[in-house]
Amino acid sequence: MCQGDDPNCRDFETHRLDFRTGLAKERRAFLKSGFAASGGAAALATAGISLVPPALAQASAARAAGGPRLHSLPANAETVHWGYFSKSLAPRLEVNSGDYVTIETLTHHANDDAERMVQGDPGAESVFLWTKDKKGVMRRGAGPGDGGGLGVHICTGPVAVRGAEPGDVLEVRILDVAPRPSANPAFKGLAFGSNAAANWGFHYKDLLTGDKPREVVTIYELDATGSRNWASAVYNFRWVPVTDPTGKVHPTIDYPGLPVDHGRTERRFGVLKNIRVPIRPHFGTMGLAPKEAEVVNSIPPSYTGGNIDNWRIGKGATMYYPVAVPGALLSVGDPHASQGDSELCGTAIECSLTGTFQVVLHKKADLGGTPLDGLDFPMIETAEDWVMSGFSYPNYLAELGPDAQNAIFAKSSIDLAMRDAFRKMRGFLMGEKGLTEDEAISLMSVAVDFGITQVVDGNWGVHAIIKKNVFAGQA
Amino acid sequence: MCQGDDPNCRDFETHRLDFRTGLAKERRAFLKSGFAASGGAAALATAGISLVPPALAQASAARAAGGPRLHSLPANAETVHWGYFSKSLAPRLEVNSGDYVTIETLTHHANDDAERMVQGDPGAESVFLWTKDKKGVMRRGAGPGDGGGLGVHICTGPVAVRGAEPGDVLEVRILDVAPRPSANPAFKGLAFGSNAAANWGFHYKDLLTGDKPREVVTIYELDATGSRNWASAVYNFRWVPVTDPTGKVHPTIDYPGLPVDHGRTERRFGVLKNIRVPIRPHFGTMGLAPKEAEVVNSIPPSYTGGNIDNWRIGKGATMYYPVAVPGALLSVGDPHASQGDSELCGTAIECSLTGTFQVVLHKKADLGGTPLDGLDFPMIETAEDWVMSGFSYPNYLAELGPDAQNAIFAKSSIDLAMRDAFRKMRGFLMGEKGLTEDEAISLMSVAVDFGITQVVDGNWGVHAIIKKNVFAGQA
Repeated sequence: MCQGDDPNCRDFETHRLDFRTGLAKERRAFLKSGFAASGGAAALATAGISLVPPALAQASAARAAGGPRLHSLPANAETVHWGYFSKSLAPRLEVNSGDYVTIETLTHHANDDAERMVQGDPGAESVFLWTKDKKGVMRRGAGPGDGGGLGVHICTGPVAVRGAEPGDVLEVRILDVAPRPSANPAFKGLAFGSNAAANWGFHYKDLLTGDKPREVVTIYELDATGSRNWASAVYNFRWVPVTDPTGKVHPTIDYPGLPVDHGRTERRFGVLKNIRVPIRPHFGTMGLAPKEAEVVNSIPPSYTGGNIDNWRIGKGATMYYPVAVPGALLSVGDPHASQGDSELCGTAIECSLTGTFQVVLHKKADLGGTPLDGLDFPMIETAEDWVMSGFSYPNYLAELGPDAQNAIFAKSSIDLAMRDAFRKMRGFLMGEKGLTEDEAISLMSVAVDFGITQVVDGNWGVHAIIKKNVFAGQA
Repeated sequence: MCQGDDPNCRDFETHRLDFRTGLAKERRAFLKSGFAASGGAAALATAGISLVPPALAQASAARAAGGPRLHSLPANAETVHWGYFSKSLAPRLEVNSGDYVTIETLTHHANDDAERMVQGDPGAESVFLWTKDKKGVMRRGAGPGDGGGLGVHICTGPVAVRGAEPGDVLEVRILDVAPRPSANPAFKGLAFGSNAAANWGFHYKDLLTGDKPREVVTIYELDATGSRNWASAVYNFRWVPVTDPTGKVHPTIDYPGLPVDHGRTERRFGVLKNIRVPIRPHFGTMGLAPKEAEVVNSIPPSYTGGNIDNWRIGKGATMYYPVAVPGALLSVGDPHASQGDSELCGTAIECSLTGTFQVVLHKKADLGGTPLDGLDFPMIETAEDWVMSGFSYPNYLAELGPDAQNAIFAKSSIDLAMRDAFRKMRGFLMGEKGLTEDEAISLMSVAVDFGITQVVDGNWGVHAIIKKNVFAGQA
């Protein structure tokens, strides 16, 4: 179905108008929402301990033109890019520093159960549209032509921030996150997600039982109204070869968004019976366009963020990203209902979410002497912690040469990511907290927790967490 | 000073009598303590969700002879072994299943500041005694002669459990943990610990500033009365060559318990100013004697526990160990006031502690069909979580051949430890929770957190944590 995104559709102009009207409606709805009405936005700007000192907050606010505005960016074939970041993408939205934006995100695994996650949802239908003749989003991945599946995440955006330039820091506050309800009336009040134990999982060559190797997809259900804080499994199925609309057969999950035909799968209902998975809604992939390459595979995370896959990037968290290209170009995707540290089998509970964000631009000229000066990695701040994201290669695009986008997948290592997390935390404690190296190293050994973020994204991740209250006595 | 542990002392018999009387006094004090008087022991046996099903609890209780008794094991030169585990050590105490025992433990870093951590403390003085002619504990480490420092932890015990045989499981409940107050009146009400950024630390060959490499010791202080939940730094000093009482010079920390002469160090007071390290009192080293070798270096952890260095092994936690030798032979040491996941610089806040434990023996014949059947690694249970301890090599003594105790230090790897933690958690979910492999793998990806336990003990560690409430719906 054309969502105003298919120029070949004979009703393209009408559909395009509908799409734009719909966008405006959603925006009005947001403006009327409780959050906006309560003045929550203004209150949030000053709550809690932040890496932004008062003087910087004032300087950044003074640069903003007028009061903050509220925007909305729905997810559809016109507003997403699939499987890659690119500094050359035209912005889908332009905002000022200080503005708020509600961004819909779609999981690239929705077609694992289209009945529950696509059908009746115009945005999702437009993105997953794929017939012999039409494809809602032609390119999926950073490869040539159809993208080759070299990158898998549906990213909404990019959002350009007016005035952002390389060397600046973009602060992105995650004010709210909510699951996207199933649009199928049969599943009213529920939202769904998919967990694929896939060929890129840590477990894949290390199976104990049954056919080896195999890929297994588990569909999870969660309450869309917020009355339950856990998800439960609905059924699982063994991946069977999927023939895509072009006639190509996919014996494994080697291209994103393949339409699974449940007439051909064997679904086992009642799996993980009575097991409750605590939900941790968050965005697996969020970040800015890097400058090093024209089109960048969305899978390996790097210095401008991207697919960090840390479940702490949820409601209440704030991200700080180094801006690498004009406009910053923020994109959000890979929404997760829950994930454990390591994302062991290759995916989380991949579940469409809608987030509300505030973006604040901090200009390079104002950063001197602040904790954000020289920031060269994506920093996570939660209410209680500062979290450094270490990777096997902190900027693999720059480090691994022209073949970096292939090479990174052969160089995955927790040991290297641990080394990077150690160095980033040391830098934070010395640079931002003013400790000597000897003080920083002692503190890291007795008060910093290192965890395994993910072992499935090529550029593997280790995070280092320090509690803010360690410094409470300095106030 | 002879503590009744030096047969060459001319007053040996008198000192020995004093020691035994002291032991009896401490035991009486414990019996009169609030914990014993309140019947806390009986109450604890049934609290919370446990890996022990009611039928096994009853079977194990029925095997216990009479009601539980209370024991006390102080730490002194007669009750500790230093730097090694051994199946051939004579038990320092024998207990029945169900008995309670208060065990004092001493940090092997106390001599980094003897004024604060040794002086006036008869137990510590007896252990650290080292003159040209006398050494309170001759062997420190698993090497020949003086032990060579091949192993560093002062371990109190072993405690033999009557009736324990290979194939059984020993449950060790940590009921209470308290810091050992400084015995020096100048530091009344305080306890102290030492953090050594040492040559075996992850940071050692990766320093940014100053002289490279260097070792730096930071002395921390904590409240001994329990009114503060944080520790703070007192001073640090750069390690300077220490000449031991035999005349041997130690340019680095290459032997445990070296007497630091602060007439020769340069102490920097006021470091880590106003920084509060949350305390997490726990035992870095606790476990049973392995069967594979006569004398085993205390540094690498293995299947019977030992130097796991996980801060979750504190008050309220329960350990389950596979019994490898008759009597089980439990030893406890390496007490820590706090540690971060990774123990980055080589040590925690090494701080003498006293713990109160209950030991419960589960006989192999009763284990069939229970979660403890076939347990072949040290399992950690806390009030909220089950924690699997993965190692680079799960049983390095058996896996790495006759030279295992050297080889393990060349094979440290987080990647391998992650593999082991994955397999152990899978085994737990399939064996103990009855899941299929596909269910277990999905659950591990969405609800299990993998963290880096330590990267400094030769056999590196990764832990996998699952929350008990994931299964709450199954009740």
